[in-house]
Amino acid sequence: MSASIAVAELAGLCAAALARAGTSPENARIVGDALAAAEADGLASHGASRLPFYAAQVRSGKVDGHAVPEVVRSAAASVRVDARDGFAYPAIRAGLDAALAFVADTGTAAVAVGNSHHAGATGHHVEHAARHGVVALGFSNSPAGIAPFGGHVGVFGTNPIAFACPRAADHLPLVIDLSLSAVARGKVMQAKQRGEPIPEGWAIDAGGRPTTDPEAALGGTMLPIGGAKGAALALMVELLSAALTGSHLAFEASSFFTAEGPPPRIGQSFVLLHPDAFAGPAFAERVETLIGAVVAQPGCRLPGARRAELRARALKEGVLVPAALLAEIRALAS
Amino acid sequence: MSASIAVAELAGLCAAALARAGTSPENARIVGDALAAAEADGLASHGASRLPFYAAQVRSGKVDGHAVPEVVRSAAASVRVDARDGFAYPAIRAGLDAALAFVADTGTAAVAVGNSHHAGATGHHVEHAARHGVVALGFSNSPAGIAPFGGHVGVFGTNPIAFACPRAADHLPLVIDLSLSAVARGKVMQAKQRGEPIPEGWAIDAGGRPTTDPEAALGGTMLPIGGAKGAALALMVELLSAALTGSHLAFEASSFFTAEGPPPRIGQSFVLLHPDAFAGPAFAERVETLIGAVVAQPGCRLPGARRAELRARALKEGVLVPAALLAEIRALAS
Repeated sequence: MSASIAVAELAGLCAAALARAGTSPENARIVGDALAAAEADGLASHGASRLPFYAAQVRSGKVDGHAVPEVVRSAAASVRVDARDGFAYPAIRAGLDAALAFVADTGTAAVAVGNSHHAGATGHHVEHAARHGVVALGFSNSPAGIAPFGGHVGVFGTNPIAFACPRAADHLPLVIDLSLSAVARGKVMQAKQRGEPIPEGWAIDAGGRPTTDPEAALGGTMLPIGGAKGAALALMVELLSAALTGSHLAFEASSFFTAEGPPPRIGQSFVLLHPDAFAGPAFAERVETLIGAVVAQPGCRLPGARRAELRARALKEGVLVPAALLAEIRALAS
Repeated sequence: MSASIAVAELAGLCAAALARAGTSPENARIVGDALAAAEADGLASHGASRLPFYAAQVRSGKVDGHAVPEVVRSAAASVRVDARDGFAYPAIRAGLDAALAFVADTGTAAVAVGNSHHAGATGHHVEHAARHGVVALGFSNSPAGIAPFGGHVGVFGTNPIAFACPRAADHLPLVIDLSLSAVARGKVMQAKQRGEPIPEGWAIDAGGRPTTDPEAALGGTMLPIGGAKGAALALMVELLSAALTGSHLAFEASSFFTAEGPPPRIGQSFVLLHPDAFAGPAFAERVETLIGAVVAQPGCRLPGARRAELRARALKEGVLVPAALLAEIRALAS
């Protein structure tokens, strides 16, 4: 059974629940907005379903709800952020905004976030940057979920690659956001919560055998896209997000879904590229010509098109959230 | 029938053939070295097999063998290179070296190369950067070979993503280099040259049907890794390499394999990240801990391990090149 709620109301409820658990008003607002935004985009696995886990982690101290991220411009075109065991969302936003303030001068900038937590919908972070006119890449690691090619013990997270590109006026940025597992681990979590089996091809169990049991899959590893190539990209993202930021590697990080244990201390990194430093005025035309060639082909849509449609509808009509989950969040908020 | 030749001798022969076709000594040396290096790494599809095509394109004027790349530091952390319709290798090297000269100060840098040509083994470019102590990402587009998800007309190139990460002393950089097609288009070219069929799952023909005929595959499109995710990554690489550099899009670019037509004018881009600006001293430990966890697992190797072994052997024992190809290169060089 699902219940309808306005996106802004959901954001406020999530923020209130986090504040009650022991989160600063500023952090609670940023995290609440992020969860509601994911829900609006149809990304339920990064939306309200995370709130009870986040709140429990604040209460246990696994996340420091009052953390103030430390932002340092470590070199002329580089920003280092220490999330200080707080939520990722405020740390990422602070780092990106610091870089966005100078990237018109440097043309290129990177942001590395360490001692961090679940990045949520990584696409939202790069979309924020693209709304300021820059091309953006984003990477995060996450607790171990993918084995190296040839093995079956998880070493890499499901490790999203996100990308956003500004478009001509009247268009939202083009956003690509994908995990390097065949599907996001959050979808297995959701199947478990619903008591449903998962399709074959998503995961293997701890012994390396194909499985349709979400419980066995969560105890095993997710299969990467494209075999050896996907596993190599997961290694690349692990190096860019964990090694470059001096953070915990996937297999050292604690779960995003339990209140026990030390903070996950994973990492995120972002690269910003200002079109004026490269193609200049030709950039916008090149982007629209490419996009035109994609959408002109019957049956082809842009990545992110469905999310954008769902968002537009959600902002008008609200979102549907499982009634039990909404009741739980209301209880946590009151 | 294959013939053995020392790597340095092959490089010299390729350079001589290019010089004879109308290439400046400096450009001929850089391109010859690149082709021989690809051959040494076992990347025959980016090795000596390209020389006859390159030489024919110099003769026809499709490539300007005497081009001197124009390198501009367009912003504090950004380099723009105009390859001026010459070979990609000298343009990329000039751009990377310009960025490597300042990246210790900026922490982050990007290089965009426009009016360019075939990038060859993209991994070699990022490896060059990693030998200077920086983490490097590289992207190139190429003539249209992959359809958007849901379509069957090629819009994106097979669009490599390359990545290199410096390692502790005594280790070569870790190099990842993969095309976003299930296999590189060059492998289909090779199958055609050998008169062999290709496996199913590599490509579809111009009508969107699965094919094992390399000729039909070259007239159709390559299948991306991971379905919609791979197609989205190919779009991302197209934007990073063509749009960001103001270059021809994949479907506007002329073939790398014919002497006719205008220059391909594709693009490449690179991002350099200096570990000192981010994790600092923790970086090397994090990299080696991650790599240790990969290679400790039975049956698991690092990406690029086979290339490194082949290279070490090739530098001692030489490489095996098809005898007819070697004879053709010798004829072109004399």
